[in-house]
Amino acid sequence: MSAAPPPCIILNEPQLAENIGAVARVMANFGLHDLRLVRPRDGWPQARAWASASGADWPLDNARVCQSLEKATADLTWVIATTARPRETQLPVHTPRQAAADLSARVAAGQAVGLLFGGERAGLETADIALCQAIVTIPIDERFRSLNLAQAVAINAYEWRMTVFDQPRAAFDHNLAPPAGQAAMLGLYEHLERELDEAGFFHPPEKRPSMIVNLRSALGRGGLTEQEVRTFRGVVTALSKGRGRVLAKRAAALAAEQAANQKD
Amino acid sequence: MSAAPPPCIILNEPQLAENIGAVARVMANFGLHDLRLVRPRDGWPQARAWASASGADWPLDNARVCQSLEKATADLTWVIATTARPRETQLPVHTPRQAAADLSARVAAGQAVGLLFGGERAGLETADIALCQAIVTIPIDERFRSLNLAQAVAINAYEWRMTVFDQPRAAFDHNLAPPAGQAAMLGLYEHLERELDEAGFFHPPEKRPSMIVNLRSALGRGGLTEQEVRTFRGVVTALSKGRGRVLAKRAAALAAEQAANQKD
Repeated sequence: MSAAPPPCIILNEPQLAENIGAVARVMANFGLHDLRLVRPRDGWPQARAWASASGADWPLDNARVCQSLEKATADLTWVIATTARPRETQLPVHTPRQAAADLSARVAAGQAVGLLFGGERAGLETADIALCQAIVTIPIDERFRSLNLAQAVAINAYEWRMTVFDQPRAAFDHNLAPPAGQAAMLGLYEHLERELDEAGFFHPPEKRPSMIVNLRSALGRGGLTEQEVRTFRGVVTALSKGRGRVLAKRAAALAAEQAANQKD
Repeated sequence: MSAAPPPCIILNEPQLAENIGAVARVMANFGLHDLRLVRPRDGWPQARAWASASGADWPLDNARVCQSLEKATADLTWVIATTARPRETQLPVHTPRQAAADLSARVAAGQAVGLLFGGERAGLETADIALCQAIVTIPIDERFRSLNLAQAVAINAYEWRMTVFDQPRAAFDHNLAPPAGQAAMLGLYEHLERELDEAGFFHPPEKRPSMIVNLRSALGRGGLTEQEVRTFRGVVTALSKGRGRVLAKRAAALAAEQAANQKD
C-alpha cells in the first residue's frame, strides 16, 4: 500500500485571519499543505490571512471551508483532537510526539488522517472531541496555559516532520485493515442514537449530550473497520427491529387469541 | 550540585516588538523566564511587546537589555545558536531534541545555559555563532524556510519542556479509567450474543462462531471501562427490550382495537 498524504490540519471555528495565515506558514515550514476551516468566524477568504502567511500561500489558496466538523472529517479515517486539558472522555491522550508517531504509521499504511484544533477563545467542545479517535495535549506549564493557535499547530507539525525526518518508525502491522472513514462512523453513531431515542434510552433528557459523548468515544477509539461498522449497524438493526418484530408478532398473536377468546 | 535555572532565551537584534512579546508568551507556556535582548532595533521597553504577550508579562518585565552578545552571554557556560542552515563552523549541529537533552543534562549539573536566536531578517552572523558551543537546526522543509522567530523559540522551548516533563503519561493518564476486567467484557459479549440469537442475527448458523469473533474483537480492542460496559449493556437492553416493548404495546393496542371493532 502506498503512503497517504501528510495529516491535514482542521481549524474548528477559527477567529482571527492572522492566526489562520500563521498556521499556513508553519504548515509550509513542516511540509503540510491540506488546510480545512470549519465555519471561520469572519468568513473566507480574508486578505489578512495571506498577509500573515509570509508567502506560504498554497495552504490558504487550497483551503477547504466546511459548514460542519462532520463534513470536514468525512474522508478521514483517524482524527486526533488537540486540547489544553484532559477531558472527560475515554479517548487515549497522547503527547505531540506520540500523536505524530501514531499518525506517521497510519500515513505510511495509506490512511487519511488529520489534526483538529479548536478556536482561539473556546477551544474544542466535548462533542467535537467525541468525533475523534484520540487526544493530543501539549505539555504546557500549568502557570501559563494560553498557547497561541499557530504555536499549537507548529509543535504538532514539527513532531510530524521529525517522524518523516528521523525514521525511528514503529513497525506497522500490515495485517490490520484500516479504520473506517469518519463519515461511516458518524452514520453508525446516528443510527444507534436514533434507535436509542426511540427506545427511550436517553433519560433524563439533559444527560443525552454527555451520554452520546461517552458512547461515541467508546466506539470511536477502537478504530472500527468499514466491515465492522456494517456489522454494528446490522447489530443495531437486529436488536431494535428484529427483536421488536418478533415480540410484536408474539403480542399480536396473543391479542388476536384473546380477541378470539372473547368472541367465543 | 543543585540544578541551575532553565535555559535563558537570547534574542540578538530582534526587530519587531510583537515578536518579542510572542517569544515571552511561549517562554511562559514552557516554563522559561530569563529573556535577554541584544540591541533591540526599536529600543526597549515597547508597549506592543506586552500587548502581544497575552499576559505573559514576567519575561518582559525582567528582560535584560544588552549592548553586545558577549555581555548577554558572559555568565553562561554553554550557549546553543539556532540557525536555519548549517554554517561553516566546526560546531556540532543538533536537532532541537538533541539540544534540549544536552541543555537538560547541563542544567541538572548546575550549568547556566542559553539558546541564542538571530533577528527576523538576517538571522545570526557567523561571528555570533562562533561565540556559541553548538548549533541547533529545526528540520524545516527546504521548500519554505521562513520560520517565525517565536515559532523557533516555541519548538526549542517545547523540547526543553519535554525533557523536564518526561513522565507525560503519568500526568496525562490520570483521567483515564482502566479497562474493565475480562469477566465484565464476557458478560457484555454474552448478553449481546443472546439478544442477537433471539433476533435471528446469526445467519447462516455456521458463520455464527466467526461473527462472534469479529464482534468481540471490535468491542474488545477499544479497552472499554467498567462504566462503559454497563452503558453498552444498557444499550443492548434498550434496543432489544425497550423497542420491543414499544412495538409490542403498539401491536397489542392495535389488536385490542381490532377486537373491539369486531365486537361492535
